[in-house]
Amino acid sequence: MSLELVSQTKSFGGWHKQYNHASSALGVSMRFAIFLPPQAQSGEKVPVLYWLSGLTCTDENFMQKAGAQRIAAELGIAIVAPDTSPRGDNVANDEGYDLGQGAGFYVNATEAPWRDHYRMYDYVVDELPKLIEATFPVSQKRAIAGHSMGGHGALMISLRNPDRYCSASAFSPISNPSDCPWGRKAFSAYLGGDESTWSQYDTTELLRNSQSKVPLRVDQGLADTFLTEQLQPEKLLGAAAESDCSLQLEQHEGYDHSYFFIASFIEDQLKFHHQYLVTE
Amino acid sequence: MSLELVSQTKSFGGWHKQYNHASSALGVSMRFAIFLPPQAQSGEKVPVLYWLSGLTCTDENFMQKAGAQRIAAELGIAIVAPDTSPRGDNVANDEGYDLGQGAGFYVNATEAPWRDHYRMYDYVVDELPKLIEATFPVSQKRAIAGHSMGGHGALMISLRNPDRYCSASAFSPISNPSDCPWGRKAFSAYLGGDESTWSQYDTTELLRNSQSKVPLRVDQGLADTFLTEQLQPEKLLGAAAESDCSLQLEQHEGYDHSYFFIASFIEDQLKFHHQYLVTE
Repeated sequence: MSLELVSQTKSFGGWHKQYNHASSALGVSMRFAIFLPPQAQSGEKVPVLYWLSGLTCTDENFMQKAGAQRIAAELGIAIVAPDTSPRGDNVANDEGYDLGQGAGFYVNATEAPWRDHYRMYDYVVDELPKLIEATFPVSQKRAIAGHSMGGHGALMISLRNPDRYCSASAFSPISNPSDCPWGRKAFSAYLGGDESTWSQYDTTELLRNSQSKVPLRVDQGLADTFLTEQLQPEKLLGAAAESDCSLQLEQHEGYDHSYFFIASFIEDQLKFHHQYLVTE
Repeated sequence: MSLELVSQTKSFGGWHKQYNHASSALGVSMRFAIFLPPQAQSGEKVPVLYWLSGLTCTDENFMQKAGAQRIAAELGIAIVAPDTSPRGDNVANDEGYDLGQGAGFYVNATEAPWRDHYRMYDYVVDELPKLIEATFPVSQKRAIAGHSMGGHGALMISLRNPDRYCSASAFSPISNPSDCPWGRKAFSAYLGGDESTWSQYDTTELLRNSQSKVPLRVDQGLADTFLTEQLQPEKLLGAAAESDCSLQLEQHEGYDHSYFFIASFIEDQLKFHHQYLVTE
């Protein structure tokens, strides 16, 4: 589990760093970014927010555009941003922006050719936290959040692993991937034509009848061009009503799917997580 | 002076918009971005900060990475970010990242082939503010700021036009372009081999003996890899000591030349400008 430092930049009194490492879950070299707040330099073990990005993104989009470091530095939270898929010349790919490299959907693929490397679920749930917690001055208090495809990933992963996360949130998540074009394309390829295998990775299906106590928050812009066809946050409300889960849906007039929306409300989401991360 | 709207995105209760327009100063179509804070929607005429970006940048880098909209929305300041040069297939260019398109240096070129379009000084000082003030709900209170090449541009323009700006600031400016590799390459090309013509565009030369009352602030990271060879902020201190100018130089241990540095201190710079922009 050796790490190669790619870059390090001081930011808001803490450090933004990028690393490469050989991932055993994915069978390729992966890059991730970590923001270590100032509190981590004084020996304090800080909690970690894992951020899962959306289609086409790398570890860089959130770290460069969300403005999250300012608040993370204030609250004493580390942020870890993995890439959105395995990458490389030997990794299966597709011409579309919504399948293959940059579009791993945080599942373990079972179908050829994807199953050789596309195991982002195992990477995000197991391998990456193990590496982070063995390497950096962080506690085992974890939160998980993301945007769009990564918003789906964050909610889905928290529902399947309620003991591992204190809280979960999403901006503009793909709420019901089994029933929208982005999700159906990806799940057909990665998981195959038998749709009964899809529900294990579908946030809306998981939420129905879930007994997870992980508090969930979703922020959705009402001028998001993907709202009706791809995102469908009303599905989450319906499913949460059938479950024991706590889901807070915040809808924002006029905001779209971009990082300007995320930047406008990331402070609210980080403060949402902070209240659960600091609880013993 | 007709404007074509390219994009509009809600951000921190205000609006980020991009426009194309035919520039008469440059003889090409130019894109700029404007952030209009919430106060501008209620009919209030807000002051404007002009932001000049560095080498290779467009109107997008600052708007996406600096996190400035949050504070501008709070303080009620509009921000205008022009491109860093004329662009297009018919515009002279160079293979280097530090000359030609993306590297206009905010001067009026006198030498062929650059003089056909490279008149960024006239564009930023005259044409763009005239367009902004005729189109948007803004006052004639102006501040100017920038990064690296744009930091040089902001300080230089304020020193040459003390009646037009309430305040000026820079992150990591190229302080003395006549005496560093980036500046000498650009000024030789745009202004020719007679170095006596360079001083009119050189901040350090202008600052010496200046009687400008425009307050100046400079933020410089001490881990900036360009510090010694290209930036040389100590030249500004020396020149300011020979002048009537007020120059505040803030040096920051550990910070580099990136937008993570800018994001870390943009709140301080915007609050610096705000105190002068709200004075009658």
